[in-house]
Amino acid sequence: MSSLKIDLPMVQEAREYLKTHVEKTPLRKARSLEGDVYFKCENLQVTGSFKIRGALNRLRFLTADEKKKGVIASSAGNHAQGVALGAKINGVKATIVMPETAPMIKVLATQKHGAHVVLSGEYYDHAYEKALQISKAEGQVFIHPYQDQKVIAGQGTIALEILEEMKDLKQIVIPIGGGGLIGGMAYVIKSINPSCEVIGVVTDQTLGMKELIENRQPVLKSQVSTIADGIAVKKPSPEMFENYIKPYVDKIVSVSDNEIAEAIVNLMEKDKMVAEGSGASGVAAVMSGRVVLKEKSVILLCGGNIDMNTMFAVIETGLRRKGRHTRISVIVSDLPGALARLTAIFAKNRANILDVMHDRVSSELSVRETRIDFLIETSSFEHAKEIKSKLRQEGVRLLGPEVE
Amino acid sequence: MSSLKIDLPMVQEAREYLKTHVEKTPLRKARSLEGDVYFKCENLQVTGSFKIRGALNRLRFLTADEKKKGVIASSAGNHAQGVALGAKINGVKATIVMPETAPMIKVLATQKHGAHVVLSGEYYDHAYEKALQISKAEGQVFIHPYQDQKVIAGQGTIALEILEEMKDLKQIVIPIGGGGLIGGMAYVIKSINPSCEVIGVVTDQTLGMKELIENRQPVLKSQVSTIADGIAVKKPSPEMFENYIKPYVDKIVSVSDNEIAEAIVNLMEKDKMVAEGSGASGVAAVMSGRVVLKEKSVILLCGGNIDMNTMFAVIETGLRRKGRHTRISVIVSDLPGALARLTAIFAKNRANILDVMHDRVSSELSVRETRIDFLIETSSFEHAKEIKSKLRQEGVRLLGPEVE
Repeated sequence: MSSLKIDLPMVQEAREYLKTHVEKTPLRKARSLEGDVYFKCENLQVTGSFKIRGALNRLRFLTADEKKKGVIASSAGNHAQGVALGAKINGVKATIVMPETAPMIKVLATQKHGAHVVLSGEYYDHAYEKALQISKAEGQVFIHPYQDQKVIAGQGTIALEILEEMKDLKQIVIPIGGGGLIGGMAYVIKSINPSCEVIGVVTDQTLGMKELIENRQPVLKSQVSTIADGIAVKKPSPEMFENYIKPYVDKIVSVSDNEIAEAIVNLMEKDKMVAEGSGASGVAAVMSGRVVLKEKSVILLCGGNIDMNTMFAVIETGLRRKGRHTRISVIVSDLPGALARLTAIFAKNRANILDVMHDRVSSELSVRETRIDFLIETSSFEHAKEIKSKLRQEGVRLLGPEVE
Repeated sequence: MSSLKIDLPMVQEAREYLKTHVEKTPLRKARSLEGDVYFKCENLQVTGSFKIRGALNRLRFLTADEKKKGVIASSAGNHAQGVALGAKINGVKATIVMPETAPMIKVLATQKHGAHVVLSGEYYDHAYEKALQISKAEGQVFIHPYQDQKVIAGQGTIALEILEEMKDLKQIVIPIGGGGLIGGMAYVIKSINPSCEVIGVVTDQTLGMKELIENRQPVLKSQVSTIADGIAVKKPSPEMFENYIKPYVDKIVSVSDNEIAEAIVNLMEKDKMVAEGSGASGVAAVMSGRVVLKEKSVILLCGGNIDMNTMFAVIETGLRRKGRHTRISVIVSDLPGALARLTAIFAKNRANILDVMHDRVSSELSVRETRIDFLIETSSFEHAKEIKSKLRQEGVRLLGPEVE
């Protein structure tokens, strides 16, 4: 394998080349966070993520012969769209192997850019193996999502753009998957502005590079389910670690799926932007207090490709965690008027009812008793507590703890 | 009442004043629409809507005496936040009367800016009357949401910003509520670039100015429910019509709530931005084909303050209208294995099941029959049709029409 190392001229050259193909995405003041914090909005990038940068920068080095044979990649998401659009721009045929479980919207988006999509295997690893097989058999160049010098240099252009606008950057928060994004960016930042602190974010589900930086043996999971699928890399690469993470990344923190969901809702409500799970992970790291931004800082929103069906669950989780959705379960004697009495109490306390479920057959109930589960809209945890206490005062039998 | 008319110097002066307080919002190439179409992103504005511009420009004309007494406004939404923040910036006390039915998130956002919120009446009209009463009794200046020269000049600054960046603008699409926004903007555009076509958008639920421009008598509805609450003005103002709509607006089209929901989903999926109902109405007008953009054009996204509970319903509607959510109802004999057989057919045809509801007690069923309603994720209407046809081939009894 050729060297993974990059240098500044490579990134500067990539930056010049990319100017005509990708957007110099905006650096926006964060509305959802306090302090001198800015978002670098790669969620607004062409294809909805930064991946197009690395892909395009890799593809421009194809020889005439390689171009004829086309390229191949494996991806469950953003790399697929990056390579597909990059190949189209270069007039090259692209084959993308995606797991059969890939969200439909990502398959469609990849096909829309003219790529040939092959669905294979249940998980990413299978798709990866399949792509390598095809590449060997048919001679197409395999475009690796991160372990590639040209790809890393391409992602590094994001850091150049940030430093052009903000020379005095003091802290930056970047999601870590395979390490190509944080690697390219951290190299550029430490080369130009060595005093800037570089913080990486992984998810609880796949600690990846966090385990390596802490001298722990990575725990490999055969199957990973996280809302931040964009950074869910199961097997951290030792080469990426030695070349980039160890020398240029100051620390790595991890966030949970619930924290990410809350961050996505915050970004929608206050910044009016859509970020995918991995894209919002930096915001989650700050909101959870695991990263403290004290100076001029940037959080990279690396992508915005979130499935709208996932969005349902995210909004529900985010609102619940902010005390804006509250579940209240009560047991009432199954008499006419019981529901009317309850809903009157909610109305009086300005709690909008979103959902009601009756249960008359549960084993915990006596005959003539009904359990009713309400989902109500509240303004805060305080508000929810008040309502519960009002219900108790009115003699309603609530399920769940007396004091919360 | 003082004159409603504005002139260019007033707007230019407002633009200078507002520079330090509001954002010059980005003009972004639309990813969700074909052609040379740009979005002016007032959804990204401070307070999440353009209303802060008019409010601030009005407040700077308060006399020392008026400042002491404070200001009052009535609003169910964005004007409330605009006046509240504007007053805070000017060190003036603000009272905002909101209907009791106002979404909690808007009440909270208004209070967050330090305003005193009074909840009164079920609908906006009641809040408006109450605000006038208080204003008379206590001497606070009433800040009208649109029928005010200074407010109109403030909204006109949006058009100045657009023309600074895009001198050759040929078409612009602007939502119409009371007419302050489109009035100020259309005046500026026709003064500087008279050949630019100005198109207004209203909702089917409140045709407002559309009826006046078509020489029809406005149909006043006592109660209006629309997702585009920001432009749901029940009583179009004849003064605003004569001074602004008639002379400067070329045509007005109307869109439905379902079309707006589809536009909101499109903006989230492709442009990664959150727009509220009225904010997305211009996009809905273009997506529905009611407005055809042939030349260099701008659609104003006027606001992004959408309640997350509304967002649930919007996503559901948007996906259904794109063929991405399909409801399939079947009747099966209530035997073990019936559900397993059905779900296997869905799996084989790559249709993800989102929700399942069993009904054993409906009057349309015989004993031992079960109705099952599925909500499934499909890639298109074609895909949904295929699946239904496969189910029929396998002898499944589907409810609903044979041919769709």
